[in-house]
Amino acid sequence: MQLARVIGNVVATVKDPNLGGHTLLMLQPISPDRKSVGRAVVALDAMGAGVGEHVFFVRGREATFPFFPGEPPADACVVGIVDSWDVE
Amino acid sequence: MQLARVIGNVVATVKDPNLGGHTLLMLQPISPDRKSVGRAVVALDAMGAGVGEHVFFVRGREATFPFFPGEPPADACVVGIVDSWDVE
Amino acid sequence: MQLARVIGNVVATVKDPNLGGHTLLMLQPISPDRKSVGRAVVALDAMGAGVGEHVFFVRGREATFPFFPGEPPADACVVGIVDSWDVE
Amino acid sequence: MQLARVIGNVVATVKDPNLGGHTLLMLQPISPDRKSVGRAVVALDAMGAGVGEHVFFVRGREATFPFFPGEPPADACVVGIVDSWDVE
Amino acid sequence: MQLARVIGNVVATVKDPNLGGHTLLMLQPISPDRKSVGRAVVALDAMGAGVGEHVFFVRGREATFPFFPGEPPADACVVGIVDSWDVE
Repeated sequence: MQLARVIGNVVATVKDPNLGGHTLLMLQPISPDRKSVGRAVVALDAMGAGVGEHVFFVRGREATFPFFPGEPPADACVVGIVDSWDVE
Repeated sequence: MQLARVIGNVVATVKDPNLGGHTLLMLQPISPDRKSVGRAVVALDAMGAGVGEHVFFVRGREATFPFFPGEPPADACVVGIVDSWDVE
Repeated sequence: MQLARVIGNVVATVKDPNLGGHTLLMLQPISPDRKSVGRAVVALDAMGAGVGEHVFFVRGREATFPFFPGEPPADACVVGIVDSWDVE
Repeated sequence: MQLARVIGNVVATVKDPNLGGHTLLMLQPISPDRKSVGRAVVALDAMGAGVGEHVFFVRGREATFPFFPGEPPADACVVGIVDSWDVE
Repeated sequence: MQLARVIGNVVATVKDPNLGGHTLLMLQPISPDRKSVGRAVVALDAMGAGVGEHVFFVRGREATFPFFPGEPPADACVVGIVDSWDVE
């Protein structure tokens, strides 16, 4: 998984029916010292995260697990809202 | 998923039979401020997207979900046409 | 999927038995304007592609789909020979 | 898999229920000569690794294998604590 | 798959039980002209490869195929020892 900051939302009227009802968040992956790293990602939200919050998200097939037995065609999903982290 | 702009089409007469009938789009991934980021991607289209439109696409095994029970050998698929996005 | 040019072949006598009988192609991924992008990839060939041809290939689990019910331990496979592409 | 150093922990009260009870480690991938390479990763811990230890971790669907039949929505997991490595 | 040179071994006493008995190789991915490209990878060995040999390895879920019905939590595995390759 990776740390990210929620930076916005994506609006899409025309989308796969199995994405219906899901919030599409725009995430900016960040490093432990809160710098932006790499590309923004469009992710589903399984946690009710809001813009400005720090989260961690999962990529790949596991991004659909929180919606089981639903199978949205998604490869990224927020699975936790981060309270804090500490690094050496 | 990732934001992208549809920049063209790919024509292939000789292809896997399970790709028959599918449109092959050329996508350029973009950042939230509409700059090109990274390599162009050849993707299936589950949404009827046209050149110039902004879309989001899914990678990996989930790229076949919109065609279930079909299983085209594809690792990228457009699953939404983007109306707009807002970022902080 | 990604565009690539077939640049050569790989010879391997000692390989996983489920790769037996498969051609191993060396691919150079290319951009829509035919420049090399990123690393060369060793891929299976489901299409009979030859050196110098432009193809598109699939990565990941889907690379085994063309050989179903066979399950070669492969993560890249040529699934189409490209006639042409057009981009804006 | 990849070598990494455990550099910290992530605290998240609000997370997917299937992540409950799992430790979330912050890993810094390293090269064989112990230099940091690439982005920090948030990973589950199947081994009881501590901060400062060298480990190797697995990405993708296999990151859930150590917890079978549990299926935490995770794409990275520490699966070994490294005693040593030798390279030419 | 990708070309690589076997550059060493990894020793890990504490590891997932399903990795028991498996050799852990350190691989350096290489380009067709034998230059190092990208990060070193820790991979299982399904072929009995030795340090200094050129191999190709598979990533992702397919890395477990050679050990079926075993399911080691691994995302990289050597599946062939390369005799030679030729590129244009």
